[in-house]
Amino acid sequence: MKYLEADFRNAMQNKVRSRGATQKELKGLENKLKKAHEKLTRLRETAQQGFMDLPYEAVTARLVNRLAKDVKKNFNNLIVVGIGGSDLGTRTIVNALGHTGDGVHVYFAGSNTDPDTLSALLAEVDLKKTVINVVSKSGSTMETMSAFLLLREALIKKVGKKKHAAHIYVTTDKSGGTLQSIAEGEGYTIIPHPLNVGGRFSVLSTVGLFPAACAGISVSKLLKGARQIEDEHRGRGHRSNPAKFAALHYLGYKKRGQHIHVCMPYADGLEDFGFWYCQLWAESLGKSDEVGPTPIAALGATDQHSELQLYLEGPPNKIINLIKIKKFETDLAVPKTFKKYDALGYFSGKKLSVLNHAELEATRKALTKKQVPNTLLTVPKISPESLGALFMFYELACAYAGELFGINTYNEPGVRLEKDTAKRILSQ
Amino acid sequence: MKYLEADFRNAMQNKVRSRGATQKELKGLENKLKKAHEKLTRLRETAQQGFMDLPYEAVTARLVNRLAKDVKKNFNNLIVVGIGGSDLGTRTIVNALGHTGDGVHVYFAGSNTDPDTLSALLAEVDLKKTVINVVSKSGSTMETMSAFLLLREALIKKVGKKKHAAHIYVTTDKSGGTLQSIAEGEGYTIIPHPLNVGGRFSVLSTVGLFPAACAGISVSKLLKGARQIEDEHRGRGHRSNPAKFAALHYLGYKKRGQHIHVCMPYADGLEDFGFWYCQLWAESLGKSDEVGPTPIAALGATDQHSELQLYLEGPPNKIINLIKIKKFETDLAVPKTFKKYDALGYFSGKKLSVLNHAELEATRKALTKKQVPNTLLTVPKISPESLGALFMFYELACAYAGELFGINTYNEPGVRLEKDTAKRILSQ
Repeated sequence: MKYLEADFRNAMQNKVRSRGATQKELKGLENKLKKAHEKLTRLRETAQQGFMDLPYEAVTARLVNRLAKDVKKNFNNLIVVGIGGSDLGTRTIVNALGHTGDGVHVYFAGSNTDPDTLSALLAEVDLKKTVINVVSKSGSTMETMSAFLLLREALIKKVGKKKHAAHIYVTTDKSGGTLQSIAEGEGYTIIPHPLNVGGRFSVLSTVGLFPAACAGISVSKLLKGARQIEDEHRGRGHRSNPAKFAALHYLGYKKRGQHIHVCMPYADGLEDFGFWYCQLWAESLGKSDEVGPTPIAALGATDQHSELQLYLEGPPNKIINLIKIKKFETDLAVPKTFKKYDALGYFSGKKLSVLNHAELEATRKALTKKQVPNTLLTVPKISPESLGALFMFYELACAYAGELFGINTYNEPGVRLEKDTAKRILSQ
Repeated sequence: MKYLEADFRNAMQNKVRSRGATQKELKGLENKLKKAHEKLTRLRETAQQGFMDLPYEAVTARLVNRLAKDVKKNFNNLIVVGIGGSDLGTRTIVNALGHTGDGVHVYFAGSNTDPDTLSALLAEVDLKKTVINVVSKSGSTMETMSAFLLLREALIKKVGKKKHAAHIYVTTDKSGGTLQSIAEGEGYTIIPHPLNVGGRFSVLSTVGLFPAACAGISVSKLLKGARQIEDEHRGRGHRSNPAKFAALHYLGYKKRGQHIHVCMPYADGLEDFGFWYCQLWAESLGKSDEVGPTPIAALGATDQHSELQLYLEGPPNKIINLIKIKKFETDLAVPKTFKKYDALGYFSGKKLSVLNHAELEATRKALTKKQVPNTLLTVPKISPESLGALFMFYELACAYAGELFGINTYNEPGVRLEKDTAKRILSQ
């Protein structure tokens, strides 16, 4: 089964006229794409970038499954303490699929320095039955560490200093950071964060997989879906769909001023995917006065009543990327009551999924008619496999886009200025 | 007490150099702003636009309080069924303040055609103890009406046809739409949606106020906060802060290509405010190839680990509007454990609110240093008054921006194309 199908036709000139790409433009980019593929292959083979290997790491899958087995046996809750790349991917998985699993309930903390959020969590969760998974690659992130220290203190108050270590799982890279040092001193379980995978590319590493496994979500299926995309990528290289997706965005940006890139899944279960995408795109590609598309997380059909007016009639500076779910988990038919009213008759008796698909199709048609380039990714359903495929697709697309733009996709130098300033303010 | 303070200095040229506005530019816009004020006053005095009068409508406050009293006495839950302007403002109020009230629990439905969301809601809520508030100005919105008909059917199954009408409150304008006709036929309670207030400007009407009152949130305080802003606006006219905010965004858009407008509150409780803002800004101002700033909902401090890299080092096409909460409802001090570590010592023992404020201040400084124009709104706390003030501030700013851009702020012609197409697809 294909976990992800791509349709880029509505981003081409024969559909959206001068706002779309031409075959000639794509042809002209082929050499650059080939070089990008070579570079990515080199980064992977020399283990400088690990994210493309994650779908194949059976050892990691076994490790997190073993750890999660203990967690599920002994606890009811898991609190993931992380921010950015240590938070958004895991949230996406858990909020899309957590209700389907037989595992523990997953909460999140540390993604903000908001005392009310943490107070509410402390009031809600029984820490005696709770595991804390603190996730920080560097081991020194302020938001994460402040929330962790507060949760740790509350935990010790509940279960005592001696027993508390069994509740704490630390995901951090083993390069001797603060968190690693604390974990070793206190006897916490350390789950290694791969050294060669950056936060925003880490969802399919221990970062996302351990909480997923604890929630009862199949880690092997997540990886299987991702593997399908990366297998195809390794086979087709610069002709793979993620590369083509990157090329279309690059051409639109460079040649037609399309620097707003919208990700719009048509399902509530994928709302967080949009936020994960925003970090991936913004931090990876936002690098200079000239290079930096602005990612937008929209939600279909909801935002047809919010953003769509702007997309259809506003400035022609956007590419809209829609995601369709073929089959929902459940379905409901609209009752035929009141079907005599014109305003209701046309959807009376129809299933909600049929309405959802009609709206998506209507948005595609409307965008195309208004010459707004748009793409469509289709997944069979919201499953671990399709989520894995979506993550991998976008990560590869981002990597290709970075190469086309000629920037370093994997750093975030600008953030340092804010961090240092905050540190200075707090040290006064 | 002032419920909203504005600081626009970091959007001026002496702070962010060529990326900021000059006093001369603002002076040059004074006539246009004066005319905008005259136009808005005329729209208000001739009752063509009602949103500026909402803060003064004591009759509405009494009506919703009376209705809510019954709801609170007889029910435990309220389901608001609406989308866009019938959903986002209410969500903002309830998610920011619902936990503080003594009222019923508020759920939301109808904001998407996602069968899984509605199935989960039906499985969770005891309809016997639940009121359904269906909100649709036109009375024919497909997402709203399909969800409503499904909920109504489930309700009748639970409580019987005879009793079900007591559970249903219909907010719609009384111009003879489908929903009004159904409500009259079935004997539902009708709550009038003001005819001269569009959906995205309706949060302070019955649309937002009835659910707020049911949740135990003070409606009179919401209006009081809004009144403070509109009082000041009536007094200072084109020199009021919302007018100046609009002027800065207009100048940045026209003269410096700053067409990405970010709203970034530093509190989880205001996350939904950003989504409300996005609809307001996108539908009101997204009107042509030349006119249409793209609104972005970001969240501080969270998105410092997501979008900030792009804001600081990406293309200079943005204005960042920060919102600060002076005092949180609770606070927590970071334990002093492990303060010997350099990475922790500087925030050890400090309160989370202090961290939050330091991060906000650091972001302001970093943005300013990188010459990214930014503004700051400060509210004393997340209260009904400050929410009312924030809504009113942004609605007025939007109205002024619309006048400056010379567009019709209050329609959304583009959306019709998608709606008609969906209807055609479903009628096949």
